[in-house]
Amino acid sequence: MSDNNTRAPDSHETPSRRRFLNTAAAASLAGVGLAACQDQKPAAATAAAPAAGSAPAAASAGHAGANVHLKPGELDTYYGLWSGGHTGDLRVLGLPSGREITRIPCFVPDALIGWGITNESKAVMGTKPDGSLRYTVGDTHHTHASYKDGDYDGRYAWVNDKINSRIARIRLDYFVCDKITELPNVQGFHGIFPDKRDPVDEKINYTTRVFCGGEFHIPLSGKAADLTKPETYRALFTCVDAESMEVRWQVLIDGNCDLVATSYDGKLAACNQYNTENGAVFADMMSAERDACIFFNVARIEAAVKAGKFKTIGDSKVPVVDGTKEANKDPKTALTAYVSVPKNPHGVNASPDGKYFICAGKLSPTATVIELAKVLDWFDGKLPELDKAIVAEVEIGLGPLHTAFDGRGNAYTTLFLDSQLVKWNVDAAIKFHAGDKNAKYVVDRLDLHFQPGHVNASQSETVKADGKWLAVGCKFSKDRFLPVGPLHPENEQLVDISGEKMVHVADHPVRGEPHDFIIFKRDLLRPKQVYDINDFPNAVKDPKEAGVTRNGKKVLVKLTSQAPTFSLSEIKVKKGDEVTIVWTNLDKIEDLTHGLAIPKYNINFITNPQETKSVTFVADKVGVFWFYCTHFCHALHLEMRSRLIVEP
Amino acid sequence: MSDNNTRAPDSHETPSRRRFLNTAAAASLAGVGLAACQDQKPAAATAAAPAAGSAPAAASAGHAGANVHLKPGELDTYYGLWSGGHTGDLRVLGLPSGREITRIPCFVPDALIGWGITNESKAVMGTKPDGSLRYTVGDTHHTHASYKDGDYDGRYAWVNDKINSRIARIRLDYFVCDKITELPNVQGFHGIFPDKRDPVDEKINYTTRVFCGGEFHIPLSGKAADLTKPETYRALFTCVDAESMEVRWQVLIDGNCDLVATSYDGKLAACNQYNTENGAVFADMMSAERDACIFFNVARIEAAVKAGKFKTIGDSKVPVVDGTKEANKDPKTALTAYVSVPKNPHGVNASPDGKYFICAGKLSPTATVIELAKVLDWFDGKLPELDKAIVAEVEIGLGPLHTAFDGRGNAYTTLFLDSQLVKWNVDAAIKFHAGDKNAKYVVDRLDLHFQPGHVNASQSETVKADGKWLAVGCKFSKDRFLPVGPLHPENEQLVDISGEKMVHVADHPVRGEPHDFIIFKRDLLRPKQVYDINDFPNAVKDPKEAGVTRNGKKVLVKLTSQAPTFSLSEIKVKKGDEVTIVWTNLDKIEDLTHGLAIPKYNINFITNPQETKSVTFVADKVGVFWFYCTHFCHALHLEMRSRLIVEP
Repeated sequence: MSDNNTRAPDSHETPSRRRFLNTAAAASLAGVGLAACQDQKPAAATAAAPAAGSAPAAASAGHAGANVHLKPGELDTYYGLWSGGHTGDLRVLGLPSGREITRIPCFVPDALIGWGITNESKAVMGTKPDGSLRYTVGDTHHTHASYKDGDYDGRYAWVNDKINSRIARIRLDYFVCDKITELPNVQGFHGIFPDKRDPVDEKINYTTRVFCGGEFHIPLSGKAADLTKPETYRALFTCVDAESMEVRWQVLIDGNCDLVATSYDGKLAACNQYNTENGAVFADMMSAERDACIFFNVARIEAAVKAGKFKTIGDSKVPVVDGTKEANKDPKTALTAYVSVPKNPHGVNASPDGKYFICAGKLSPTATVIELAKVLDWFDGKLPELDKAIVAEVEIGLGPLHTAFDGRGNAYTTLFLDSQLVKWNVDAAIKFHAGDKNAKYVVDRLDLHFQPGHVNASQSETVKADGKWLAVGCKFSKDRFLPVGPLHPENEQLVDISGEKMVHVADHPVRGEPHDFIIFKRDLLRPKQVYDINDFPNAVKDPKEAGVTRNGKKVLVKLTSQAPTFSLSEIKVKKGDEVTIVWTNLDKIEDLTHGLAIPKYNINFITNPQETKSVTFVADKVGVFWFYCTHFCHALHLEMRSRLIVEP
Repeated sequence: MSDNNTRAPDSHETPSRRRFLNTAAAASLAGVGLAACQDQKPAAATAAAPAAGSAPAAASAGHAGANVHLKPGELDTYYGLWSGGHTGDLRVLGLPSGREITRIPCFVPDALIGWGITNESKAVMGTKPDGSLRYTVGDTHHTHASYKDGDYDGRYAWVNDKINSRIARIRLDYFVCDKITELPNVQGFHGIFPDKRDPVDEKINYTTRVFCGGEFHIPLSGKAADLTKPETYRALFTCVDAESMEVRWQVLIDGNCDLVATSYDGKLAACNQYNTENGAVFADMMSAERDACIFFNVARIEAAVKAGKFKTIGDSKVPVVDGTKEANKDPKTALTAYVSVPKNPHGVNASPDGKYFICAGKLSPTATVIELAKVLDWFDGKLPELDKAIVAEVEIGLGPLHTAFDGRGNAYTTLFLDSQLVKWNVDAAIKFHAGDKNAKYVVDRLDLHFQPGHVNASQSETVKADGKWLAVGCKFSKDRFLPVGPLHPENEQLVDISGEKMVHVADHPVRGEPHDFIIFKRDLLRPKQVYDINDFPNAVKDPKEAGVTRNGKKVLVKLTSQAPTFSLSEIKVKKGDEVTIVWTNLDKIEDLTHGLAIPKYNINFITNPQETKSVTFVADKVGVFWFYCTHFCHALHLEMRSRLIVEP
């Protein structure tokens, strides 16, 4: 039943495996231009053959398999923050166990938290004039956390919503989403990355900006005639302020943005571009043999904004600077630099030594290594030809998508079409590219199950990359789990990368579709387990304050709870009243959360110890409605219920 | 950090542990009437001391711990169906790994599936006259599956929504919810159980009814004056037809319903009752020293309905028979029988040998064993005193809530206050109750973490109970997982019950609050992995059928998909059009699901291979909206996007 994960490197050419994959996602590739890549493969495999002595990988019961399974009560050693995909939340995992510990709702309502139900959460999510939620769907892709001195500082995480071009911020002390910003002028906001320090002010050694890549190009002129003229469509790159969450500036570019990376010195941000053609139909998006990785000179862009060298678009007041090729021909004043990379690349990742950005080829079997010092040289007028910043472009396998790092000079790139993870040495790749054909840059290969997308390793995107655990998000799970009907889970696979050989240690089914994630040491966070009641201006601090007061048709209900009772045994209102319930959970004990549901009124939410929340609704149905605790709190939890009496 | 799970039986009296628990959910119990129970404990512990020779439990690395951790690619051997709690879905787990494989949305919208977004799902969920969803919150508690010959037959599962008194049915071939019924005349619908065969027709050896317990009593007269007269409030027991999902009949009762059990011969259903007092405030619900387990004589109730001996309530046309004590004094004609059980019981469970229903004491440290043959004797006039059907009422520990079985004569009851699982022998308990004070009915005790509620074991609620794995839903997790802020996950603990001693083998954090679940052998299900295109009357079977047709302001878009393209590269409509997109995913390969999101239009849903779904919306925003695939399908997934052009 299980696939053989002890297969030797490069044994992926086994006909049966290739045939299996060809019936899956690789199907029909020949018809859309990938046949050429497949034809190149044998040569690539030869060039990238691993060094002699690479024995078959150890069995999964090997040295690392022993500690992936925690004993009951044993704590994980790493946090994982996983983007929630369609559920629009941020998932928090413990690693190496792979257990999902909580989900933090952001873009999509959540009927446990009451996210999208309470007044406080509706204010964060955004509402229409009638008070209903503006959006109830999401498509989160990428999550990253705030930095200080090149490592995570435990303040914030951010996650994007591709459908409606929103960015959410999560406070990592209480694990709650506290701000959501909708980006103007863009569609298909995809990649996201915080900066790591300020490009100018050395004292600012922490994150103050978050960069956002706009993937779809759209008409921006406001002219009806342009709706059907794709040649007028444009995409933008956006900078959001990490504290205020307001949009600082945008950059008009040629082509589109996909993923985002930032440099450790704060000077550069970059996006890979898969549609430099500005194509509006499928074939046009793939017509160019090379696309690009666009670099943004952050300091220069902000100087231009400061100098008033910007426009605005439509109703938006956000400054938009011109980052097109035409306007940035002179390196010494350029805001942007377009480094060419092969056909429709995907993923751009910063190596933990701070030296390189690596683009994965997607439709090319290559990885492209770009040296940041040389990009800065170009901006300084010291590198005549920008593409000389490319220090390696080596073949690694079919369908490269994303890259992680171990802090020991190795990169780990997912190969979507080969269903493999390839471990390759960056320095060796650079030597090979420079002409040393004896440089064996491919160190190891591991079969995955199946069609891997994002990959990340413990601390990989920090200066503290520690090369212990690596996780891969596989897009197809096929027969890896018990069948559950037509919709299969994704398969997140955990790999031990502490040794020379990679060891696949566990499979975890996950609900579609997490895309990206980060993994970091548990001591980087110091979460708070109980709220401070004084953080809530509307807190009802004493059960004696509980009661019902009326102002015309507006009724204010102040309510408290202490297990196993609410402070009011009944609330009496009249039909048509606008009722606001402000509820403080006075229990102080960690984990003693209560819920409050009102039958037929579509209200359900929880309140944690010492927390205050509120809901507002119109009492439009006559009757007795038992509002009850929905979060098991006490032996007498079922008896924790009171009556909302709505009189005619 | 981890709690010691090798503690000897009955060592829960350790002062430090007791003190710890007392700071949690047990706090304030003394103030609400539980001090008495705690005082009784030492005596109970003595009476229930385990047999000599019960050595300390094996360490968690013992004989069973070895196979709880599957190798990558290895399949689980059991399915688990878990109620989804507040998320209003049904969760599907694999056991013994404890991995969540999928979630089936029922009562609450789901932004992955597009549940609550597609026309088909809105029809199942129910809408208001304006087309918006009637409810978006849920509180599922109990899930059970259809039976044949006393074992699961793999046709259906059902799950309840307590908030809005709804019951959902899940098809276990495609793992989808296909029907939701809102029960009339009840509030706080809590317990649920299918029957196991027909009480009269021997040929019907499978489930045809589902029984539903109404927990909250409410005014049913329709008189405004009764709103504030709790003495007029009443609760009902409800029978739903398993095939049509229509409500067959209801029974007016004294007191309330909590959990539900059904007999293997189809003749009896029962509910435990914690509020026989019909109390409307906290203290009144606990005033009686004994409450009840109410039995329903299914054949007699249906005969009464057939004979027209019923009333209806308000607008509802559902026949309501009279199950009150006053109307059912004569055993030979009685529809109901109220067996007394100690104070505020929780949980009623049927033993797999078909002989007994067991009620857990909650506020009494006891389990009550009721012999079904004796209850039937009472209905036949052969047992003068109904409470003589109680064949055991034994002390097992503090806060008993639910009971599972191993098929070898042992029961496993959760002790909420003691944070323990107690294994006890039913026959020995009956002997002890009959006067044999040497009968040692407590076999073993296991500390849990913390405050356990529901418990179930593999095949426990079938005639095939196999006594291998047991899972417990612990309401508090405290420090068992990495901290994630004030809201803690629940802790589902897995226990190996194959030996004499129970062995705790794993902890799993879960999102609140699953309540109940069932566990059964994987070969009982035969799920289908790809839809039959002919099951969808509106299927677009050929890309050539794709196109846009207009009828006044109504626009019909027929769309197909084959990775990596939609069959239309653009859809052009006018502002104000009512647009319906009917989309068939023509890909036939297992696991090749696509998604469709429309930015700013709040639309996102997936379509599985050979499935057809539709959405309807008003094109109220002018612009170009790239509708794109949100479910990674192919190397060119990002390029799978087309334009919805809305012209002024």
